[in-house]
Amino acid sequence: MKHLARLEVPGLEVAVRDAARADLPALLSMLADDQLGATRDAPRDDSGPYLAAFEAIERDPAHRLLVCEHAGQVIAMLQLSLIPGLSRRGAWRAQIEAVRTHADYRGRGVGRKFLQWCIGYARSQGCSLVQLTTDKSRADAHRFYAELGFTASHEGMKLQL
Amino acid sequence: MKHLARLEVPGLEVAVRDAARADLPALLSMLADDQLGATRDAPRDDSGPYLAAFEAIERDPAHRLLVCEHAGQVIAMLQLSLIPGLSRRGAWRAQIEAVRTHADYRGRGVGRKFLQWCIGYARSQGCSLVQLTTDKSRADAHRFYAELGFTASHEGMKLQL
Repeated sequence: MKHLARLEVPGLEVAVRDAARADLPALLSMLADDQLGATRDAPRDDSGPYLAAFEAIERDPAHRLLVCEHAGQVIAMLQLSLIPGLSRRGAWRAQIEAVRTHADYRGRGVGRKFLQWCIGYARSQGCSLVQLTTDKSRADAHRFYAELGFTASHEGMKLQL
Repeated sequence: MKHLARLEVPGLEVAVRDAARADLPALLSMLADDQLGATRDAPRDDSGPYLAAFEAIERDPAHRLLVCEHAGQVIAMLQLSLIPGLSRRGAWRAQIEAVRTHADYRGRGVGRKFLQWCIGYARSQGCSLVQLTTDKSRADAHRFYAELGFTASHEGMKLQL
């Protein structure tokens, strides 16, 4: 996979690229290695619905599943989706989901640099808004996003079907 | 436009259909006729970015701009987007944006029936989650969505570019 950017993270050589099919086990491990994800995601099953989801994301250019790679290992991930809309004067919005940093690489600034790169990418694609929701129990995440300039202006409402 | 459903709303004959280009002025009026939208949207300019946004939504089958029609008039609107993702076992999510009911038709149950129909539609499309964000100042909206079964489990974070 072609590298989209190199991130300046002290002590690491971090490249941003699109996720590949072969990354799927590493991505599922990161999704599951998380207080909330542990109850929702199964790390060892990289077929079935996970593979179908990977292929649906890959098929549609509106969605990118992005990873940070260091020394041949996937150390962070997120999904970025570009969504058109009428409101806010026909604004395109970039929506970010499934943000994770590998447990061994937390607290080193990888996530911050990754998000900053994504914000710049969203701007380059003509978006005038970046949005995401984060579980109310994730106080660290709220601080992290606030430091990046996000405002917790909305309630994020979910309905399980 | 083909009708997708008829909604049971006492005293009204409400049909759900996709929005058409000719509806755009009515949609922009509803977007602007709102405490928050008034500062963000201009009702009379149905060209330029609004038309481009309408066409982007129309072009991509992942997005539907839906309206409720009564007696030849558009009385409610929303956008429904189907978004694939890895998390929650590769769940598809339906995201709802730009929910508005015409001022003359509020309080009659149109919005509730419209959302209920959309939740059923999301289910029929294989989604396992419906999500939306709503400004923290809209207390009525929070009650409305809670009554429909939504949980305000997340912070909705936005970054203007």
